Amino acid sequence: MSATSSLTEDYALAHEAAILRDLVEFAAIPSVSTDPAFAGDVRRAAEWVAARLRRAGMEAVALHETGGHPVVMAEWRHAPGAPTVLIYGHYDVQPADPVEKWHSPAFAPQVREDRLYARGVSDDKGPVLTAFAVAEAFMATAGRLPLNVVFLIEGEEEMGSAHLEAFVAAHPAELAADFVLSADGAMWRADLPSVTIASRGICTVEATLHGAAKDLHSGRHGGSAPNALAGMARLVASLHDGAGRVAVAGFYDAVVRPPADALAGIAFDEAAYLAEIGAAGPGGEDGLALLARQWSEPTLEPNGMWGGYTGAGTKTVIPAEAHVKLSCRLVPGQDPRRIQQAIATHLRAHCPPAFRLDVELPDHVAEPYAIRADHPGLTVAEDVLAEVLGRRPVRVRMGATIPVAEAFQRVLGLDTVFFSFSTTDEDYHAPNEFFRLSSLRTGLRAWVRCWERLGRLRAGGFTH
Amino acid sequence: MSATSSLTEDYALAHEAAILRDLVEFAAIPSVSTDPAFAGDVRRAAEWVAARLRRAGMEAVALHETGGHPVVMAEWRHAPGAPTVLIYGHYDVQPADPVEKWHSPAFAPQVREDRLYARGVSDDKGPVLTAFAVAEAFMATAGRLPLNVVFLIEGEEEMGSAHLEAFVAAHPAELAADFVLSADGAMWRADLPSVTIASRGICTVEATLHGAAKDLHSGRHGGSAPNALAGMARLVASLHDGAGRVAVAGFYDAVVRPPADALAGIAFDEAAYLAEIGAAGPGGEDGLALLARQWSEPTLEPNGMWGGYTGAGTKTVIPAEAHVKLSCRLVPGQDPRRIQQAIATHLRAHCPPAFRLDVELPDHVAEPYAIRADHPGLTVAEDVLAEVLGRRPVRVRMGATIPVAEAFQRVLGLDTVFFSFSTTDEDYHAPNEFFRLSSLRTGLRAWVRCWERLGRLRAGGFTH
Repeated sequence: MSATSSLTEDYALAHEAAILRDLVEFAAIPSVSTDPAFAGDVRRAAEWVAARLRRAGMEAVALHETGGHPVVMAEWRHAPGAPTVLIYGHYDVQPADPVEKWHSPAFAPQVREDRLYARGVSDDKGPVLTAFAVAEAFMATAGRLPLNVVFLIEGEEEMGSAHLEAFVAAHPAELAADFVLSADGAMWRADLPSVTIASRGICTVEATLHGAAKDLHSGRHGGSAPNALAGMARLVASLHDGAGRVAVAGFYDAVVRPPADALAGIAFDEAAYLAEIGAAGPGGEDGLALLARQWSEPTLEPNGMWGGYTGAGTKTVIPAEAHVKLSCRLVPGQDPRRIQQAIATHLRAHCPPAFRLDVELPDHVAEPYAIRADHPGLTVAEDVLAEVLGRRPVRVRMGATIPVAEAFQRVLGLDTVFFSFSTTDEDYHAPNEFFRLSSLRTGLRAWVRCWERLGRLRAGGFTH
Repeated sequence: MSATSSLTEDYALAHEAAILRDLVEFAAIPSVSTDPAFAGDVRRAAEWVAARLRRAGMEAVALHETGGHPVVMAEWRHAPGAPTVLIYGHYDVQPADPVEKWHSPAFAPQVREDRLYARGVSDDKGPVLTAFAVAEAFMATAGRLPLNVVFLIEGEEEMGSAHLEAFVAAHPAELAADFVLSADGAMWRADLPSVTIASRGICTVEATLHGAAKDLHSGRHGGSAPNALAGMARLVASLHDGAGRVAVAGFYDAVVRPPADALAGIAFDEAAYLAEIGAAGPGGEDGLALLARQWSEPTLEPNGMWGGYTGAGTKTVIPAEAHVKLSCRLVPGQDPRRIQQAIATHLRAHCPPAFRLDVELPDHVAEPYAIRADHPGLTVAEDVLAEVLGRRPVRVRMGATIPVAEAFQRVLGLDTVFFSFSTTDEDYHAPNEFFRLSSLRTGLRAWVRCWERLGRLRAGGFTH
């Protein structure tokens, strides 16, 4: 740990108890965005956020209506020449179900053994409140922030940020910034400081194979009528070669792989991973490290496949139709629309002549995302983490898509630095979600230092 | 047509109107075996059959209880030295649904244009009544039958003859005979006299492939976790080679194929068949005639396959489980239990190491069936058909299983000669089922001549 704490950092830490009281109050609001029954509570949480930002001395604080739950925006832009960061976070939470599994009520926050238990404390109320408290600490101790900020706190993250992209696209001037500093996200592991530098994109394809015009009797027609399930099995099997590599022409053509040493120094126990997921062996391409398969290799997987009789006992039909839902996780260089087309081309080319094939290319696509390796905001984040946690963070990639980072990049041209002090073991999206009080303290210190360091940089030079 | 009609034949034809009145009365009883609401009607139909057999002069007429609907038995065994035939038929019928599609009520029989319309008239009340009427004609004109008969008329054929096998096994002495003459079955086509000489057997296999212990997020785990659907697609695809031939080791080893000229003279328009089923191309093994694929080639087909997300939209799971239901149609030489084992062995051998496989071998098996080519009863049937219809019948095989023939063969060691004058176009199992009155007349003549010819043979020499 660094000894160089500032007045602001001291102030923030001295007010830990008050910040915790705020967090208890915030977490007691059941702002479950996906359940219409909680719509009033979701709005109450938005108003709580706005009030908290006003108390911190932020300006232009307002709720902005969307097609769904409101976005809370605020700003402070009085540090000319210094960078502007867009602070992203969300005030909505996952449902508490199954409620009977909670040891204390999901919306009656309770401290036990240096942890605060309640729905949403780790994802994302604790981390987002950290940013508000840090803004207040600067205003209280220095009367100003060391940099320019604009807060964008949404209420629909747990329902796929349905209206965020349209909102962002409609407010480019208000959101003008050098990069996004996200209070959402999570450290990869509780015991290993990490920064997330990339996430995979996604695209999906649906296909239906038609054989005869209707299901036929397998006795009378068996052997002479085409079986759509047998055809579908061949078609889906054709998508990979025997080594688990995707066999679609052009699939890997544009892939940009991370540097060869990207996984160096990141311990990953493959046997422990397989034991954790309960599998006898891995998926993906033979010969590659499992972490590379998760983080930097693209995938093509059936998520659903069905046809024929699926009930109990026997019904000896020759199914007329078979269906498959496919999805890809995409890595830098891959264009979701091109990959959809390549898969459609493959399916059509491999469809046996006895069948008719319908292919659908849904709009559900997201680009892969990666922040550039020398992004100044990323460097600051890494330096601060090394200082505060006493250990240089590793750069990790996300197998999953981070839609907001992709949207900020695509719509505003801004990179996102994830700077949350949640960790992936805190049972968000599960019963007994908790947030470590030590993470609250670490977060306060780190956010103060991050803003101080960013304030010493000049605006510009953050984008590609 | 032969000019040599007998007194008995003349008598039967002279009583056509009375026989038709009987059929109308019989068909008005809604003996729907699968619907418990009709249980009383089913019993009433059994009693009607018993009364009709008594009136025909048959002996030992009785309803025999089973675990389900009763079996009606009767006999006449006073032709020493002559063969004994077991007359099989059924008095139950399919449900009338969809009732709104009927042009006249299903259980209010109506004659229109030389056809009698009602549920069950073709399957099997018309054909079975033909046999009763012929017995009566012999008794009325000669005071005796030319051969020995035992009637076994069941009430559960439309529900899979659930109790028939146990009943047959429990009554070997009463059912002792030279072969079975079935009043059930149907001519393959209305315009082509045919005898059915074989049917395919059946066996089924169910398999579940397990990957991880539960469905996983395709972003976080995609590439490193095994996908059970991808594994299942490969497994099912491995069951056939690229030419549609079953790739399971040993599958064809014991197959006995019919003589090379088995299909000679049987016109089968492959393009018309594909148009009829609405398929762009055939199933089965490349290079073989479609009729051979239907009749004399064994099959292995997925009847149901499912796993993962099958609802609307996208859910990007890596499915933990995938399921398949397989069934085979088997031809002479193939043993259902051995084929089940061969498939299980194949599935286990082809299961990739990342998966666990559960294989289930259900008891739902039936042997393939074929009557020997020189069976004297078959020869008589063919000679009579040639005489009455003016054209030598073709020998056809059934792609589907005929459980009663298989059960009579296995339990009693008796072959079955199908001698029904229904045709496959008479919409049995569909609305507006009908029976041609010309078929009633043809049937009466043919059954009289068949019994007369059989009566000139000696008992014995019918079994293998």
